[in-house]
Formats: sequence, structure tokens, C-alpha cells
Amino acid sequence: MGKTMKVAIMNTVGKLDFEQKPIPQVKDDDVLIRLDYVGICGSDMHLFENGFIGEKHVTDPIVLGHEPGGIVEAIGKNVTGLKPGDRVAVEPGIPCYRCDYCKSGKYNLCPKVYFYASLPVLEGCFAEYIAHPADLCFKLPDNVSTMEGAMMEPLAVGMHAALQSGAQVGASAVILGAGAIGLLTMLSLKSMGVHDITVVDLVQNRLDKAKELGCAHTVNASEADAIDTVMALTNNEGADYVFETAGSEATILQTAKLTKRGGTIVLVGYTSSGKAQMQVNHIVDNEITIKTVFRYRNIYPKAIEAVSKGIIPLKAIVSDIFEFERIQEGMERAIQHKDKVTKCVIRIR
Amino acid sequence: MGKTMKVAIMNTVGKLDFEQKPIPQVKDDDVLIRLDYVGICGSDMHLFENGFIGEKHVTDPIVLGHEPGGIVEAIGKNVTGLKPGDRVAVEPGIPCYRCDYCKSGKYNLCPKVYFYASLPVLEGCFAEYIAHPADLCFKLPDNVSTMEGAMMEPLAVGMHAALQSGAQVGASAVILGAGAIGLLTMLSLKSMGVHDITVVDLVQNRLDKAKELGCAHTVNASEADAIDTVMALTNNEGADYVFETAGSEATILQTAKLTKRGGTIVLVGYTSSGKAQMQVNHIVDNEITIKTVFRYRNIYPKAIEAVSKGIIPLKAIVSDIFEFERIQEGMERAIQHKDKVTKCVIRIR
Amino acid sequence: MGKTMKVAIMNTVGKLDFEQKPIPQVKDDDVLIRLDYVGICGSDMHLFENGFIGEKHVTDPIVLGHEPGGIVEAIGKNVTGLKPGDRVAVEPGIPCYRCDYCKSGKYNLCPKVYFYASLPVLEGCFAEYIAHPADLCFKLPDNVSTMEGAMMEPLAVGMHAALQSGAQVGASAVILGAGAIGLLTMLSLKSMGVHDITVVDLVQNRLDKAKELGCAHTVNASEADAIDTVMALTNNEGADYVFETAGSEATILQTAKLTKRGGTIVLVGYTSSGKAQMQVNHIVDNEITIKTVFRYRNIYPKAIEAVSKGIIPLKAIVSDIFEFERIQEGMERAIQHKDKVTKCVIRIR
Amino acid sequence: MGKTMKVAIMNTVGKLDFEQKPIPQVKDDDVLIRLDYVGICGSDMHLFENGFIGEKHVTDPIVLGHEPGGIVEAIGKNVTGLKPGDRVAVEPGIPCYRCDYCKSGKYNLCPKVYFYASLPVLEGCFAEYIAHPADLCFKLPDNVSTMEGAMMEPLAVGMHAALQSGAQVGASAVILGAGAIGLLTMLSLKSMGVHDITVVDLVQNRLDKAKELGCAHTVNASEADAIDTVMALTNNEGADYVFETAGSEATILQTAKLTKRGGTIVLVGYTSSGKAQMQVNHIVDNEITIKTVFRYRNIYPKAIEAVSKGIIPLKAIVSDIFEFERIQEGMERAIQHKDKVTKCVIRIR
Repeated sequence: MGKTMKVAIMNTVGKLDFEQKPIPQVKDDDVLIRLDYVGICGSDMHLFENGFIGEKHVTDPIVLGHEPGGIVEAIGKNVTGLKPGDRVAVEPGIPCYRCDYCKSGKYNLCPKVYFYASLPVLEGCFAEYIAHPADLCFKLPDNVSTMEGAMMEPLAVGMHAALQSGAQVGASAVILGAGAIGLLTMLSLKSMGVHDITVVDLVQNRLDKAKELGCAHTVNASEADAIDTVMALTNNEGADYVFETAGSEATILQTAKLTKRGGTIVLVGYTSSGKAQMQVNHIVDNEITIKTVFRYRNIYPKAIEAVSKGIIPLKAIVSDIFEFERIQEGMERAIQHKDKVTKCVIRIR
Repeated sequence: MGKTMKVAIMNTVGKLDFEQKPIPQVKDDDVLIRLDYVGICGSDMHLFENGFIGEKHVTDPIVLGHEPGGIVEAIGKNVTGLKPGDRVAVEPGIPCYRCDYCKSGKYNLCPKVYFYASLPVLEGCFAEYIAHPADLCFKLPDNVSTMEGAMMEPLAVGMHAALQSGAQVGASAVILGAGAIGLLTMLSLKSMGVHDITVVDLVQNRLDKAKELGCAHTVNASEADAIDTVMALTNNEGADYVFETAGSEATILQTAKLTKRGGTIVLVGYTSSGKAQMQVNHIVDNEITIKTVFRYRNIYPKAIEAVSKGIIPLKAIVSDIFEFERIQEGMERAIQHKDKVTKCVIRIR
Repeated sequence: MGKTMKVAIMNTVGKLDFEQKPIPQVKDDDVLIRLDYVGICGSDMHLFENGFIGEKHVTDPIVLGHEPGGIVEAIGKNVTGLKPGDRVAVEPGIPCYRCDYCKSGKYNLCPKVYFYASLPVLEGCFAEYIAHPADLCFKLPDNVSTMEGAMMEPLAVGMHAALQSGAQVGASAVILGAGAIGLLTMLSLKSMGVHDITVVDLVQNRLDKAKELGCAHTVNASEADAIDTVMALTNNEGADYVFETAGSEATILQTAKLTKRGGTIVLVGYTSSGKAQMQVNHIVDNEITIKTVFRYRNIYPKAIEAVSKGIIPLKAIVSDIFEFERIQEGMERAIQHKDKVTKCVIRIR
Repeated sequence: MGKTMKVAIMNTVGKLDFEQKPIPQVKDDDVLIRLDYVGICGSDMHLFENGFIGEKHVTDPIVLGHEPGGIVEAIGKNVTGLKPGDRVAVEPGIPCYRCDYCKSGKYNLCPKVYFYASLPVLEGCFAEYIAHPADLCFKLPDNVSTMEGAMMEPLAVGMHAALQSGAQVGASAVILGAGAIGLLTMLSLKSMGVHDITVVDLVQNRLDKAKELGCAHTVNASEADAIDTVMALTNNEGADYVFETAGSEATILQTAKLTKRGGTIVLVGYTSSGKAQMQVNHIVDNEITIKTVFRYRNIYPKAIEAVSKGIIPLKAIVSDIFEFERIQEGMERAIQHKDKVTKCVIRIR
């Protein structure tokens, strides 16, 4: 398979160039996937804009993108569950399979995981093909498109967040931040029977989207006090689950007072300083639990089933689609118009 | 409050007579409820038809009925959360509140529970009024009727069954038995994100109802082998959860082979012998868990929320409504036409 | 029972006076207990020293003390499980029994709880008698003394902390703070099979006590860096569970870096500001869970069993015993010699 | 490594012959282990005696044995955590690592697992060497012998059984059957804080061993009724957890009535018919949970830690040691003297 493929590579921070690279080889347990769609994630945008994430800096050319959906083109000799032509969603992190985390079902915490476009890994999915372990490629039912396949990745984050809360039918939730992850957390909660959801954001546009996707209440925090409003909506008790997806010190500090006695805070976002103050006495006095979300594990089959059964309107999350040729433009739009772009997806072909 | 009320009392097995009894007194923590609707449960039917349940025999006049919905008429002096005129669902078992079971949240297992029409308790809800602890009366939202309020009791059983399975979004289930409890288990599972549900029964009428309420598949076990059919539907793996609501030795024996490796059987039904054979080696080899259901606990608020939010179409479960005057007829119809009567409800006024 | 009893009352902050008060009346579900021993808790010391806790100020005379052990003197007419002469441990918080928290087994979170010497409650146990609900009085086996009975209260906190961590046999733990709660958490963990425990404190005396009680390692944080030392001890992984019992912003900030990827922080202590910074990015990246401890629930029978079976050497926690007459002196010593006093107990008679 | 090793092979049912076979090759992720000790398991005895287990028959020469302990002799090129000379316990089942069971932490349920001497696998550990994946070989601390290393396998079963019960400090247990698995379940429970344990068996010798190892009570079921005795010991409540390790229809039928309301039955044993009757009405009425045990998962590090810390006296389980040359004799003794042989171990060298 000496052929080559087109790849969008970031040789300079903020600039994507197309290059021809060899199509990757398919190892025995792998499949080769011709990609249809790849979503742009917040981490792609951060690396594109800043050239670093946390303490990790881009020092070499990197291919971004880790939200792929496509069609199986070839299979390795050990592969039995997939065949060429199958349409698949792809879980982009390859764990070691053998450490204690992997063997106890928490493979998302595998310290040796190889995750596309996550430093120090320089390989990513803004490319025509990827080779990937078959067990991390999930065949899509006929009524789920490869664009939705690509969106399974951020959905998996939202669904993991919802599961981390211990979501129970009939409970209530507050979601701080109406970006893609906030909205997908909301849709995931609804699929589990949590319908009394209040979404808080500073941008009305995003709140309108949240409302359109079916949250019960929205709070524009630039106009109303989030804590006061939620207290008024919850008989002064707070919500069973509070999800922090906005990633700011201010919203993290708010979580405690938004949470019902005995309830659960789920932290998803990061702060730029790495730290944040919390209302620890209030948290202890009310025996609040704090759960956290690092990627996801064992979620794809559930997510695909929920989308296929029509429970999660995943398509609705995509606000912008750019052809592969216009990926530079797509990336810039996603960064510059966060208020309007819920999720920008690149159509590879 | 020396007034009296009309009560349907079973002085003879199979025969309900109307008598006037004193309206019950309202203790400090109680409310007096004027009943609108009371459902007929399988245990009411069994006592009416046979005069016993298990090893407990009716030896004194008994008032049947434990699925009440109504309107608060008066409140005790300690009551703060309810007021006259509030429409309520009523949880019919009054636990002792102070034993280890009560204090650890499993009050349904309280050995001192006082549960309407459950021997040796001779008091029941086929009456114009009941007095009941306020903490076990749940105010209904405007969009939930007192008939639905009455139906919260069997829904609580179905919801507890679904919760006992550990229901997770995207999982699959088989339900043996399409009676009221089987159907309410199905609706509960769907509210929690379990949509791949196969319902098995011998009566086509009941299966049609299951289909109408949204199960994915039905199996008429008088025509097809349940295990073979489920295996064909599940890629030879079986279902994540298998609920036995039919209450027969034959269906209990089937549960093991219907269940996926590592899955969960939930036993709800009773057998007439008290015993049943199980495929224990298969169950151990596949590390299957067996959970069981005795009434419910801490469910009513969740159930009311789910019905109010439109997630569970509770009304659809009611197939027959009889006026209080015709309760004898209603009871007989429920018993004689189990194939057609999903749930018969008595309209008290 | 018009007789009176001696009570130590705090009319002025920092000063206990003896007064004669009526012996409390025994309601139907209560028992009257003649107290043998009452422990001094940190919250007693804080109120005695400062006249406030958090935002709650002592404005009226208050009886301190909520760690009582004694002998049943009389029983109410509904009481069946206890009789005069029974030696008992007493769970000092009386919940409402009927709210959602009580009914779901989390009665420690009951918003209406009546807890001795916890503002606004002015009644406490530094008295010759208390009347208390029988279901919250636990009969002691012959081999457990009423002094140990008194110590069940702080043990319950430690055991609840250990349970909140999800303690599993063979796991590892770090405990920040070697006060009574830190040590009792340690003993509780050991009773559950967690033996690889490192205790961190600034005072060598307390660390010596921890060592004597069987922790695997101690770190004197005035001499060595806690994080570096724990990393060296844990193959650079951190501990499965990290308990913060010291109640300082500095130690709360340390918890994240002490915890293993996927591990659990348990917050027990309070800060004086009510807030604390946390390493949120590190916590999210490593999917660390934070659990918290507010008193305890459903623990006394387990704690008594563990002490009776010799698994928890509870007596060893008591460093100082003062006669009731010398309670002022006992309180002062406990406050002034925190380095030497693990637990000071008042012998009421 | 063209050398050969001595292997005990069963060419005929009930007869072990020594043959020379090639020392297995070490693949990249494997280590080569020179075996010191291999225990004889009940399944080895069953295959040796009968030539079948369940519906699987021995049709080809088979090497028995799957409880190995030994010393690393060589390592594959990818192996980093072990080196020649390390003493190890070996987890004998090699899962596929990639199926849903493996990835969700339940690798013991992997349908593709390769488990020594478990049909259709014909390879076993009664040999001088085995090659095995490094991630399934666990380095032993200095104070744990390779004989104890071999015993980690049956201990893992007992520990998994204890964990499946949800073992909580201070709870009570009944164990039916005082064979090796029953005793190791008992020791595991004690390591988790469950000390009120009653062991039931028909053979006094085995009960004496249980007593010696520290159970609270024994019942010789040939002399006393197990249910009556347990009821007398538990205030007529039954035990929190009931473990069935005897593998008979009679004992499985007993489990329900031995279990406390709301308690848990753990099924470990198999019946010869594959089926067993259960008291299903009693089980449902008391909302009893039934858990099951198929091998174990993620247990070895915990088990080794517990033995190393002196919490589990694992050595005491070994009643008989035979040199490799006398393996035929050892096997026969284990089968013929089940009353006296708790665990027979073969010393390979």
C-alpha cells in the first residue's frame, strides 16, 4: 500500500498546510479507515491558537483532530468483527490494555495511552486515512451517519460526565457552560431520565441552542445571578447534580452553592491557572461529592445505541461544516465565533 | 369529625359489601385524604378470589385496595408541606421509621410496616377517605391527574424493578410477562434510556399493548421459543437485564439462558409453590446477578417527575374504570379477563 | 421524676458552671440514660474557646458535650429493645425520620436534625442524665465499656470517613492530621483491610501515637515534604485514598498531588475561611473523586462490633480522663495541649 | 532455548505420566517462569477422576494444574516490570484484552480467555516451566514464599467471593462448605472486617480447621440443623451474607432461609445436575440479592498485599505437600481424603 494521502499539518502555530504522507500500515489487529468527517475539538482550537495546552508545548509539526468518523477500507488479519465498507465511529485513544487501569475497566486512565493529537502524540485525524485497532472502531447502524459517528467522541465525554454524576431518573441538574460539552452533557442526562435541567452561560445565543435542545431552564449569567436563580427554581435546595463545563475559577467557585445537600458536582473544565478556590466548608457540611471527567470509557456502544434509537438528537449539535480544503477557515471560524459555533466539523471527502 | 364514609368491605371471600364506617381520625403527622381513584392490584384480586396469599388467610372482614389517589381534606397539626385541596399520590406502606432498615434507606423491608390490605392489616383504600402520614403523600403537579396519582403505586414497583437491574442507558432487556407490572417495568426502563426491550407473554392482546407502549420486540411464547427468539435478536448473547414478572416456575427457569454473560436477572413474580428451579451452573459460570423486588422505596418523587415531564405515559396503562358502586363488577372483570384488562381502576367519586 | 441533676453549663465563653436542672422527661420512644463518660470533641473546644463555630455564635447559656456513654435508667412505654441496666453508646443526633434524607438512609443530612451542643441546640451531654430515642441508643456487649461507648461517636466519624473512601482490602492511604479523627480514621481503615497507611502531621508526639496504633509510615511535615515522601513510598503513584483531617488550606491544597490517578480524596476538616484552593486541573486530569464527611450514618452497630471483636483498640485513643468536677480543667488541658491530648474524656460518675 | 522440561501429562484418565516437552518460547510480552509449587484444585481432581467437567470431556492428553508459583527465568523484549530472579504469583487465565468484558474490567468473563487446564485448553502447570504474559505475573514481596504465591490463585477465588458479597466491616456471614474455597472465603472476609462468621460442613475435621483459622462458630450439619442453629446465633435474623461453596442442591436450597432480610447470597459451587431449587418467594419477599463467582478479576495485588501484611495466614491452608515425582500419589490422596486434605500442593523442585 505504497500510496499516499492528504494530511493537514500544523507546521506553524495557527497555520495548517496540506502535505502528502504515506497511508498508514494496517497491523494485524487494526483496520484502515477512510475518513468522512472529523470534528474540531476545543483542544484542537487551543493548540492551533496557542501552541500549547497546560504545560505541554508544540515543538514539532503536528496533525490535529481526534473526532473521526469514516468507512473501513481494509482490515488486519486478526480482525473478525468488521469488514471493508462498514461505517464506523472511532474511539481515538489507544490504551496499553495491560496495566491495572486497563484491566480494571478504567482504560481512560491508562498512563501509556496513545491519543491522537494529544501531546506528545503528533499524529491526528485531519487526514484522509487512519489505521486504528478494530476493537476501538464501532460499526454504525444504518440510521446513523458517519458525521454522527464523528460526533460520538464529544458525545462520549458528555455521556461519561452524566454517568459520573450517578444520573438517576427524576433528578435535577445545573450545567455551567453551554458549549458543545455542556450541551452534550445535557442531551446525555435527558437520555437517562434527568429532565429538570438548568443551563447557565453568558452568551444568549448558546442558551437559545440549549433551550432548542430541550433544557428546562436557562440562566444568562450576564443578566441574572446564577445561584439566586437556581435557588428560586429549586425550592432553595439546589440541584442534585451540578456540571462545570465552562472552565473558569468563577464558575468552579459557584458549584458548591448550586448543589443540593448530599448532591454531586461534576468537574469537566480546566482553569488557566490549574487551580481554583472551592467552598470547602459548605461542601463538607452538605456532604457533597465531587466527581471528575477525563475523556470516557466503555461509552461508544451506549452512545451509538442512544443516537440510533432517536433518544439523542446528535446531529443538532453540528452548527458548521467545512470541506477539508477549507479547514484553515473552519478552524479560524470555530475560534473566533465561539458564541455561534456549537461544533464545527470538517468534511474530509 | 364524627361523620361516616362508605367503605367496600369483603365480609365473604369474593363478595364486596358497602358499609358506613367512621371517617378516620387525623393524627398530628397525618393528612385526611378524600379518595378519587383506587387501582385494583393483583394481590387484591388474589385475596378476593382465593381468600389467601401465600400462607396468610383472610379470617376477618377486610377492606382491599392500596393504590389510592385523592385530594387532601384536612391536615394534622404538625403537617407543613401539604394543605387542604392538594391533589396527592399516596405511598400505602407506613414503616416504623426507626429500625435499621428504615434508617438505612430500605424502609420497604421494615418488618413492622403497616401496609393497606396486606394481611394481617385489614384496612384498605376502597373507601371514601383514608388518613395517612403526610410524608407518604406526594403532591401532584397540575398536569398529573389523581387517577395517575393512584397509578404511581404500581409504577413505583416497575420503577424499583428497573432500578434494581442497575438500568444503564443503551442496555437491552427482556421482560417475561406483559401484565401491568411488566408493562410498567418496560416504561420505567425506557425512561432510564433502555430502549432495546423484548416483552414475552402467552397472550397476544397483552403483547399488542406492550408494542403500543413502545417495546422494541415481542415474543408470543405460545408460538415461538422465547430463548431461541431472544438469542436471535441479541447476536446470541442474551439481554443485559431479564425481568421475571410472570410468576411461574417455567419462566423463572428460563431467565438464566435469556441473560447475557455478566448480566442481571430481576425476580418480581412469585410461584404458587414458593420454590422454583434455576440453572445455577449456568448462572455461576456466567457470573449472573439476581436481584429481587419487594415493593419499592424512595420512588414516588421520581415517578411523579417522570410522568409530569411526559416521559412515562402512565394513563395508557389503565384499560378499565368502574364507578365505586360497581366495584364488585370491576373486581370480577379484572379477574376474569386478565388478557384484556391491563389495569382496572375504581373511581371512588 | 421531679428530681434534679448536675449539669455543666457555659454561661460565659470559656467558663463552665455547675447548675442543678430537672432530670429530663422520658417520652414514649425514649430511654433515660445515666451518663458514665462524655468525650470532649473539637467542636466543644472551639465553642468553649471562641464562642462560635463558623457563622453560628453562642448567645445563650449552652451545655456542651455530644459523645456520651452510660447506663439505661428508665424506658418509655414504646421501648422494647432496651431495659434499665443496659449499658449503651448513644448516637447524639436525632433526625426527623420523615424527610427525603431520612427515608433514603442519609439521615445525617436531615435538615431538621437535633444534635446535642450543635447550635442552635443548647442542650448537651455534660450532665448526669440525658433522655434519648431508644433507636439511637446501642446496647454494648459485655466486653465493651461505657467509656468505649462514649468513644463510639468519634469512631463513627472515622469509620464513616473510611467508608466514604470506598475502602478496599489491600489499598493504600494517606491521612493528613494525627488528631483523634485522623487516628480513628486510621483504625477504621485497618479494620477494613487497608494497612498501607501513611500519617502526616507537624507534631512528633501525635505521629508517635499513630505509629503506636499501627500505621505503616509517618511523615513529620515540619521536617520533610509530605508529597515527596509519599511519592517515594508509593512508587511515584500516590495513595488510593487521601484523608484531610487537619483542616487547613495548606493541607487541602496538598491532597491532589498525594492521590493516585483514579483515587479518592476524603475531606473531613474545615478551614477557618470556609474556602480553600484545590489543584482542579490535576484532579480532573487524573479523574480523582472527592468525597466528604458530615458526621455519620448507620455506623454504630458496625463500630461496636469491631471494637467488641478486638479489631479496633478504641481505648487506646483516650489520653486523659477528668472527673466531672474537674471538667473546666479538662477542657482547658484539651485546648492547651493539643500535641499531647489525643482525646480527653470526662467521667461523669 | 531448544531445551526440554519435565511435564506430568494425563494420557489416560486417572494416570499421570512424565514426559519431556520443549520449554515454551517467551513471546515479547511474556516471561518464562521456573515453577516452584503448583496447587491441586478441585477441577484438577475432577478431571483426573472423571475425565470430564460439566459437558466438556477430555479426549486428548492434558497437562493439569493452574495454581502456579515460581521464579522468573527469562523475559520477553517488551517486559519492563519484572526481571530474572523475581519470585512471582501467576494469574492463570489469559484474556483477549480487547472485548467488551476485558475493557470494562470484567476480564474474567472474557469469552476468549485461555485458562490453563480448562477444557478445551490442554496446557497446564504441572511442568517445570511456563511462559506467561508479564502483566499476569505478580512479584512477591520478600516475606511471601512461592508456595504462598501458588496459593494466591485459590485465595483470589475466596477474595472475589467476599468482594461479590459487598463485605462491610461489622457484618455477619455464613459459609456452607469448609473446603479450601470456603476457608479462603472466610479468611478473606476477616481481612475485610467481617468477623462474625459461621462455617457449616458435614465433616468435623474440616470444621476444626475452620475454627483454628478463626471463624466465630461452626455447625456440623450431620448433627444439627444448619438453619435452626444459625437462626439461634443471629437473633432469628439470619446472616448478612451466605456463601454456598459446597456445591449441592441441598445446600443451595438452604441459602435463602439462612440469609437476613435484604442480605446477599453468594453462589460459588456447582451442582452435578446443573440446576437447583431455590426458595424464590422467600428470596423475593426479603429482597435478597444473589451474586455469583466465576474465577476472579483484579485481585492478585490485593491478595498479595493482605498476605504480606500478615492479615491472611495463607500458609495455613496447605495441608499436604508432595514432590513432583510423587504427583500421582498426591492427586490420589487429595481425591481420597477430602476430609483431611485442605489443600495439596506439588513441589515442582
